[in-house]
Amino acid sequence: MALVVAKFGGSSVADADKIKRVAERVVEQRRAGNEVCVVVSAMGDTTDELLELAEQVSPLPPARELDMLLTSGERISMALLAMAISKLGAEARSFTGSQAGVITTSTHGKARIIDVTPGRIRGALDEGAIAIVAGFQGVSQDTKDVTTLGRGGSDTTAVALAAALHADVCEIYTDVDGVFTADPRIVPNARKIDKISYEEMLELAASGAKVLMLRCVEYARRYSVPVHVRSSFSTKPGTWVTELPEAELVEQAIIRGVAHDSSEAKVTVVGCPDKPGVAAAVFRAVADADVNLDMIVQVGSIAGTGRTDISFTLPKTDGRTALAALDKVRAEIGFDRTLYDDHIGKLSLIGAGMKSHPGVSARFFGALADAGVNVEIISTSEIRISVVVRDTDLPGAVKAVHDAFELGDPDNQAVVYAGSGR
Amino acid sequence: MALVVAKFGGSSVADADKIKRVAERVVEQRRAGNEVCVVVSAMGDTTDELLELAEQVSPLPPARELDMLLTSGERISMALLAMAISKLGAEARSFTGSQAGVITTSTHGKARIIDVTPGRIRGALDEGAIAIVAGFQGVSQDTKDVTTLGRGGSDTTAVALAAALHADVCEIYTDVDGVFTADPRIVPNARKIDKISYEEMLELAASGAKVLMLRCVEYARRYSVPVHVRSSFSTKPGTWVTELPEAELVEQAIIRGVAHDSSEAKVTVVGCPDKPGVAAAVFRAVADADVNLDMIVQVGSIAGTGRTDISFTLPKTDGRTALAALDKVRAEIGFDRTLYDDHIGKLSLIGAGMKSHPGVSARFFGALADAGVNVEIISTSEIRISVVVRDTDLPGAVKAVHDAFELGDPDNQAVVYAGSGR
Repeated sequence: MALVVAKFGGSSVADADKIKRVAERVVEQRRAGNEVCVVVSAMGDTTDELLELAEQVSPLPPARELDMLLTSGERISMALLAMAISKLGAEARSFTGSQAGVITTSTHGKARIIDVTPGRIRGALDEGAIAIVAGFQGVSQDTKDVTTLGRGGSDTTAVALAAALHADVCEIYTDVDGVFTADPRIVPNARKIDKISYEEMLELAASGAKVLMLRCVEYARRYSVPVHVRSSFSTKPGTWVTELPEAELVEQAIIRGVAHDSSEAKVTVVGCPDKPGVAAAVFRAVADADVNLDMIVQVGSIAGTGRTDISFTLPKTDGRTALAALDKVRAEIGFDRTLYDDHIGKLSLIGAGMKSHPGVSARFFGALADAGVNVEIISTSEIRISVVVRDTDLPGAVKAVHDAFELGDPDNQAVVYAGSGR
Repeated sequence: MALVVAKFGGSSVADADKIKRVAERVVEQRRAGNEVCVVVSAMGDTTDELLELAEQVSPLPPARELDMLLTSGERISMALLAMAISKLGAEARSFTGSQAGVITTSTHGKARIIDVTPGRIRGALDEGAIAIVAGFQGVSQDTKDVTTLGRGGSDTTAVALAAALHADVCEIYTDVDGVFTADPRIVPNARKIDKISYEEMLELAASGAKVLMLRCVEYARRYSVPVHVRSSFSTKPGTWVTELPEAELVEQAIIRGVAHDSSEAKVTVVGCPDKPGVAAAVFRAVADADVNLDMIVQVGSIAGTGRTDISFTLPKTDGRTALAALDKVRAEIGFDRTLYDDHIGKLSLIGAGMKSHPGVSARFFGALADAGVNVEIISTSEIRISVVVRDTDLPGAVKAVHDAFELGDPDNQAVVYAGSGR
């Protein structure tokens, strides 16, 4: 008997029929002898409809009340799922985030989980019931107010509950078959990845892969929760996100996949005085405006001018804020002007151990050069190489890199680029 | 500075514009220097829409889950009202039934309030905020599950909170100007009652007046909460429900109003053996089926037969259940058959002290006789006379009685029929 935490997103519970299908799936798992705890999001467009109602009443509602409003969404879906399960003859009990013991900070709209005390969930499971938990919501430790976890919150709820319950697996049901070596809409022969390490999944999520949110993967890694990303439309195995054997991590350069991201823009601060503290002042101004930078590049001093350019990428949604923040400090810092470019794309190659295998980057940049793609910014980590290219070059670049590493080869589970073989 | 608990029903918060109007009204009260706690129902048709969703998933959903589902309704309206108040520059904080300390029994769907511990509400008021509370809902003492209070639950929430907070008044906002001497749709010159005792209001509510639910009035009487029933569309005073001076109750026969009820049916159990225990067996069978009887009449033994008929009235919605229950015990009790009549109407005259003034009943039955109305069943209390008539006779009977006691006379605040005059 295993303890399974299964999370179903809003599209899986969008209407009564879909809720019934989820109920069947869950009851099957229970009847197979497992203990089952289900985490649900709000039905389909519920959250958008509630936001629209709020907008009609007040353009800038208090965050506490917005959380109170939005959390009604999961309340509806979880109660309906419990009813559907009950109709199939199994016992189900639904719990709000607060009842499930999801204790958070009090930052409404983007609270972070501090602790999970799943006494009531454990009790329901002990009595043989299927526990249904509202995703995305919790209760603040200090004020006992209802909070929400922000984007990807339901995935995080599921992983956090799985950790607290010492579950055997946290299943994340989604509308794709798992995590792929590249976006199948761009690379038709992209292959589902059977198994991936937390670190690699973190880099994929941070580099634009949308199937799992970064926070959820971070949480899973911290508490070593095995995550199984799989399709809610089939019973085929999906992608397992787990710890990989140390040997595999160190001795081989395994290329997992290619991620891309079209949601960023590039800001260039032109004509900065080339002296200590200037870059720090630029980034301080942007950070004070609550904007997260991604990649940064500084061109060396331009001969004879004593001046330099600083470029960085950031989410397009933060573009206006960052430019306004920089404009305020232009005179003080003494740069000439800012340039804004929202026609860039980011491509990342992810794989454990690639850093110790120089052949990887040679092949990577070779593939981009052969495809005629110009690289504007480069950034690397132990297990990732990222480049910024023109947005129009992005699909071709993704395909070229995916091909160069033979990621679409159905015989290769993980492509071993160098090392002692397997 | 007064402490006001104000309750707004579903039609008062049916859409964004109506919520904004309620917000304006509430903020005005706050700015006038009062402490304000608002109790809200779910928006307009929300409850019906949620029930429809539940029906699509399961025809007989578990009561616990139905409560979980339905309580999302007030969560939405209260958060939106808090946002609207906040937009007007006042501070508002919304609280679920559980957060507001509404502790109930665990009978889902019709829980009863056991205790109210409004620490968080008191805290919000102390900080100058307007507290918004979800009506109709609470948390069970034993299981800490979410419960609902059943029909009229939001009124009861308001009165219970007013009692616990020692409020100066519990205002019940509704779509009429207050409690009337009769239904103005039937009696055009019906007059708004300025002041009425708990006991009279109880009888009116029990006799079909829909403006306040019986439970809410019972609660108000038990804790001596002054209730002010008033229109959400005007600032005119409505009807005050309070304790009346003892003198007024005892020495005068004050006729408050005429209530009517078309929601009942009459069951006649024909040919019962005229011996001890038979009536008890009949009523036991009906009570065991969870049907509440209203009026009961037993015709004396029919000459020479040793048999008698027993009639009673009950809600039409319980008719089928009661007949089925009686059918099962027919052979055992030995009656002939049952008759079902759903073309009856009940009329009640309510006023404190009428019992000690025989002239009241003489005038009452005289008016009915003059109007050619045949009376089928009679029942009385200290402050009420009720009769069952044909449903087609009901409107004429209500008008006749209303006229006979000059209840429409604008000069009479309360019609003093007999006694020391005022």
